[in-house]
Amino acid sequence: MTSSLKPFFEPCGVAIIGASASSDKLSYGILKNLISYGYRGGIFPVNPKADEILGLPCYPEICQVPSPVDLAVIVLASKLIPSVLEECGKRGIKAATIISGGFKEVGEEGRSLEAEVLKIAAKYKIRLIGPNCVGTMNLITGLNTTFIKGVPATGGIGFISQSGAICGGVVDHVANNGIGFSHFLSLGNEADVNETDMIEYLGEDADTRVIAAYVEGIQDGQRFLKITRQVTRKKPIVILKAGQSEEGAKAVSSHTGSLAGSHAAYQAAFKQSDAIEVFSTTDLLNTAMALDWLELPRGNKVAIITNAGGPAALASDSLALNGIHLATISTATQEKLKEKLNPSAQTGNPVDMLGGANEDEYSFALDLVLSDSGVDMALPILVPQALVKPEKVAQAIVNSSRKSQKPVIACLMGYESIQEARKILHQNHVPMVDFPELTGVMFGALYKRSLFEKVTYKNPVSEQNSGIETVKSIFNKNTGKKIWGENDTRPILSAYGIPLIEGGLVNSIKDGQNFANSIRYPIVMKVASSQLLHKSEAGVVKVGILDDKSFAENYNQLINKAKRFDAKAIIEGILIEKLAPKGEEVIIGMKRDPGFGPMMMFGMGGVFVELYKDVSFRIAPLGVDDAMDMIRETKAFQLLNGWRGGSRFDIEAITTVIMKLSQLAIDFPQIQEVEINPLRVLPEGDGTLGLDCRMILK
Amino acid sequence: MTSSLKPFFEPCGVAIIGASASSDKLSYGILKNLISYGYRGGIFPVNPKADEILGLPCYPEICQVPSPVDLAVIVLASKLIPSVLEECGKRGIKAATIISGGFKEVGEEGRSLEAEVLKIAAKYKIRLIGPNCVGTMNLITGLNTTFIKGVPATGGIGFISQSGAICGGVVDHVANNGIGFSHFLSLGNEADVNETDMIEYLGEDADTRVIAAYVEGIQDGQRFLKITRQVTRKKPIVILKAGQSEEGAKAVSSHTGSLAGSHAAYQAAFKQSDAIEVFSTTDLLNTAMALDWLELPRGNKVAIITNAGGPAALASDSLALNGIHLATISTATQEKLKEKLNPSAQTGNPVDMLGGANEDEYSFALDLVLSDSGVDMALPILVPQALVKPEKVAQAIVNSSRKSQKPVIACLMGYESIQEARKILHQNHVPMVDFPELTGVMFGALYKRSLFEKVTYKNPVSEQNSGIETVKSIFNKNTGKKIWGENDTRPILSAYGIPLIEGGLVNSIKDGQNFANSIRYPIVMKVASSQLLHKSEAGVVKVGILDDKSFAENYNQLINKAKRFDAKAIIEGILIEKLAPKGEEVIIGMKRDPGFGPMMMFGMGGVFVELYKDVSFRIAPLGVDDAMDMIRETKAFQLLNGWRGGSRFDIEAITTVIMKLSQLAIDFPQIQEVEINPLRVLPEGDGTLGLDCRMILK
Repeated sequence: MTSSLKPFFEPCGVAIIGASASSDKLSYGILKNLISYGYRGGIFPVNPKADEILGLPCYPEICQVPSPVDLAVIVLASKLIPSVLEECGKRGIKAATIISGGFKEVGEEGRSLEAEVLKIAAKYKIRLIGPNCVGTMNLITGLNTTFIKGVPATGGIGFISQSGAICGGVVDHVANNGIGFSHFLSLGNEADVNETDMIEYLGEDADTRVIAAYVEGIQDGQRFLKITRQVTRKKPIVILKAGQSEEGAKAVSSHTGSLAGSHAAYQAAFKQSDAIEVFSTTDLLNTAMALDWLELPRGNKVAIITNAGGPAALASDSLALNGIHLATISTATQEKLKEKLNPSAQTGNPVDMLGGANEDEYSFALDLVLSDSGVDMALPILVPQALVKPEKVAQAIVNSSRKSQKPVIACLMGYESIQEARKILHQNHVPMVDFPELTGVMFGALYKRSLFEKVTYKNPVSEQNSGIETVKSIFNKNTGKKIWGENDTRPILSAYGIPLIEGGLVNSIKDGQNFANSIRYPIVMKVASSQLLHKSEAGVVKVGILDDKSFAENYNQLINKAKRFDAKAIIEGILIEKLAPKGEEVIIGMKRDPGFGPMMMFGMGGVFVELYKDVSFRIAPLGVDDAMDMIRETKAFQLLNGWRGGSRFDIEAITTVIMKLSQLAIDFPQIQEVEINPLRVLPEGDGTLGLDCRMILK
Repeated sequence: MTSSLKPFFEPCGVAIIGASASSDKLSYGILKNLISYGYRGGIFPVNPKADEILGLPCYPEICQVPSPVDLAVIVLASKLIPSVLEECGKRGIKAATIISGGFKEVGEEGRSLEAEVLKIAAKYKIRLIGPNCVGTMNLITGLNTTFIKGVPATGGIGFISQSGAICGGVVDHVANNGIGFSHFLSLGNEADVNETDMIEYLGEDADTRVIAAYVEGIQDGQRFLKITRQVTRKKPIVILKAGQSEEGAKAVSSHTGSLAGSHAAYQAAFKQSDAIEVFSTTDLLNTAMALDWLELPRGNKVAIITNAGGPAALASDSLALNGIHLATISTATQEKLKEKLNPSAQTGNPVDMLGGANEDEYSFALDLVLSDSGVDMALPILVPQALVKPEKVAQAIVNSSRKSQKPVIACLMGYESIQEARKILHQNHVPMVDFPELTGVMFGALYKRSLFEKVTYKNPVSEQNSGIETVKSIFNKNTGKKIWGENDTRPILSAYGIPLIEGGLVNSIKDGQNFANSIRYPIVMKVASSQLLHKSEAGVVKVGILDDKSFAENYNQLINKAKRFDAKAIIEGILIEKLAPKGEEVIIGMKRDPGFGPMMMFGMGGVFVELYKDVSFRIAPLGVDDAMDMIRETKAFQLLNGWRGGSRFDIEAITTVIMKLSQLAIDFPQIQEVEINPLRVLPEGDGTLGLDCRMILK
């Protein structure tokens, strides 16, 4: 799969179709970049109107370009592209990057043009990047098919961006600060190659140690999840997803025409695949830099070495927010620190060496805390002082960090006066930031990744359920009903082995009394109707019916109430259910996400889920560990797991229900939504009971 | 009050005591800064060992310094400072900035030295800044008593920092980026002058349009609250508080020896005083810049004008997080936009003019959206492109924003290529940031401030409660009991007019039955004991006693249970209470914060408060609006205010209880904690009933 992408990044020759001789054109800029950064293959400008551009002979048509050539970079008016791509196909080109816009992003006409281009590409087995992108950079070989001014340093970050503009802005930002990249590319409309393909490719690329992605929308969520899961086993992936808010999602969709889908689904996918989600461009770059350059820590304890207390306090807040704690510096280390530091210095953590601390004191203190076994990582902070040279402190930090495997991230506050220091640190692969608030996310990501490397990989499970044939035959008999109420849904869930409260549908008082006596009073009576899905709100539930007399009294009352609530409701009868044993109530559901497919939901019942949004999501298929993570992620977990010394409820049984419902969703794509609400969770060992359920088919 | 601070900022002459002739000393740096930035008063170095420093005559002692002089900047070993301060006092100096460290921050010895200094200052009525600080800058007059390298631009931000290091880092950061300050100062140990004094001073300073403060700990919270409330009526205050997390607070306290107190109390104080809290140094500077330079918006609708979709999507997320929405751009405006923009441009919001957009298109589009009545603010975004000059776009943004009162904030992504553009924008007071994620906080602050200017000022209320004498006499009779259970606390709350469930204490079955009949069954029985404050956990509550027989049965059972639970518990009797009518349960409490005094708490009962942390805090004394804000701030409000079409509960009655409890806390400082839990809230109009309560005295 990924071999077909190789010509984009390691082509034997590149044709640039639509190369212009005019220096104010993008295509001129691309040609110049192709020439400027050391790419060693052939470069062939194609333009019938020119003989030579930037000293290279120009060819009138792609068919006349000499071999070897396997990549075409196309910068032409969108309407010309189908015919040019045909010619590329005939010439044997295997990869084409279409820089030009004017496709899907501009509406219906562009959309059909894009489809035409894709069809031609398929015919000739040409892989496409773009259209509507800024191209790609391979920083290792020097191949640069973008028109971006400047290039970043070479390093281990593979950077993927759907948006070309983010690429441009980021290059401008990092061009001189030393953060290093192996690849740097924009994907634009993703007519063919998308971020999942690139994650797979960079996952196998030996020069890429960490993948950083700016993502707007993912089309095939299931494939993304599968590939990302595989790649994170080998190297970390850091993702910034635009369109987290409703308005951001709208902005994304008006931009690339891609459907953002629900951010909950994205977050679930990131969690399940152990990708690290960040929330700003700065954090994306900083986190990738740290993961590229540093070893992983053995724990989450940081020692701060500083010449000022204020920034250390801000850093401590930032660390705490990201699950990182201040290390306890041993008495022995503190005694040693006292030997050389200012007598007024603080030797506890943060180690505050006071304003006068120079490079020798930084070396001394950093060496000491890095050799303290209670310290997993170190954060030296410097606020520029009149008498201390930041460059010298930077060099001291470099020297100390070289002696230790423990990750060191530096914070040098300021702007003008710390530029030189940053160069020294970054040349030596010590990540540096200019504000203490930025450090927490970086240390947090290192620690998170270190945990990932310790745990065994969670395999999603998709197991044959013995109920599949039963459900198939139920669905086969369905004559177009979309909304399935409790009575319809119960057999589906039962077939998959999900325990439900004992119950049944009756159509007369007499049958009802017989049934109630067979399962024994007390019982619950509910009106069964697909039109009355929210039964409590409609007032058509009666709890705690104790005997035949009370049953008879309530039977017609309930039916009349249902009719009054909604005259059009078709009443299927009265559902009789045994009164459930005491327990906690949770909700388990599935909703199909347009991008990711079946999205499982778990939450505490009642107002907890709606008001406090105490819910968690994962994408099916799930591993049992994923199901357990879903529960643990909610505050509900604490209520179920012995709240304030109380009894524990059957959490394991909940995971079983999640797994079975997940399998049902995988087996039957026609199920759009299904919900068990409430699921009564009984004391540990006693299982769960579904008390109500419903389903929506496509 | 503030007039005594004037000599710090507008002295008629400055003596620098401990001025050194050696260029590697801090005091030399200070003298150089004093000379370099245009301060027009006399500058008098004092040092017995030098005749002249930096071309200025040097005086052996402060008493020999000629008039006029009213500010002394002292840079000497800490032990020398008491005697020097004496001399200053005799010389008639009215203000002294002590740069030197070696006081409270270094332990017990330093603490007593600081006390000594303070005593001398009091004797001579000298105001003190520091010790352990970097001094002050008045950017308007050019007075600079710091040793910081460089100065920021002149403008309307008054910057206060407890930490001198933060000052240094910030100056380095802003020195060349045009953000403008009126004052810039560090307060160090705050032996005398603290942030509240400075907020008051800058509140009256005509050159200061916005106050930005980096705060570590506030000693007199009540005064801070009072002054801040007054100052925010005149100008906005933006605050970054270090030590939000437990570990950050620890770092703060080891740093300046100040007790950080609970961050909840700080946040309550910021809310009550309408100060704007931010969470990073970057946001502190950016928000202050926006408030300094821009008019306030009429609403919260922003139009984004961009040459790239990705950054617009990130900006939209950032805006949504801060309560700002994308404006709906009118059809008329969109039609006009189409006339000149690229035919493929998006004219909805975000307006995406595509990569080729130049300065003319920025002018054109920005003018149009700013004249659209549905737009309150505008955010032009530029990602550097090969063929567009950021400087020209910057000038176009300046020109357009000049024509409109509506706030415009620019985002130009990048680093190297946008430096010149930033200068143009900032010289013309258009705030610029380099990442779209930074814009939300700034627009959010402008909008928040615009709302503040629309509402009437909320006056805290402290009204004589008629129960004060009753409570006084109860406390007068107290013989040292610290923990007051329900039975003890009830009369206190009753005296203040807080409605409690009808009830009383009995000591025999017979008395109990009589009492129960007098208030009528059904009743609740509880064991009364100060040792058993958590009665439900001890199992010493019995709800729903229906008759004399059941009362008698439960009486001894409950007492035995209490004895089994805690053999040492002193049992005062059985508390009988009427069964309360149905309603929702909330908690109202007060806990005295070491820094801010009585901190009121409101939250939903049960697991909501403990598990979901659905609570809010305010500092007493409160206004009724504050009490209402407390309730609105919680999710509980939705449950009380007609959840899912249900009935409303008596929210107004809750505010009454909060106000009365707040008054009780003000009147009786000996109350350390008091809690009504639960407070049963009845349907609207029916009031509330305290069902249980307890109190802890100092």
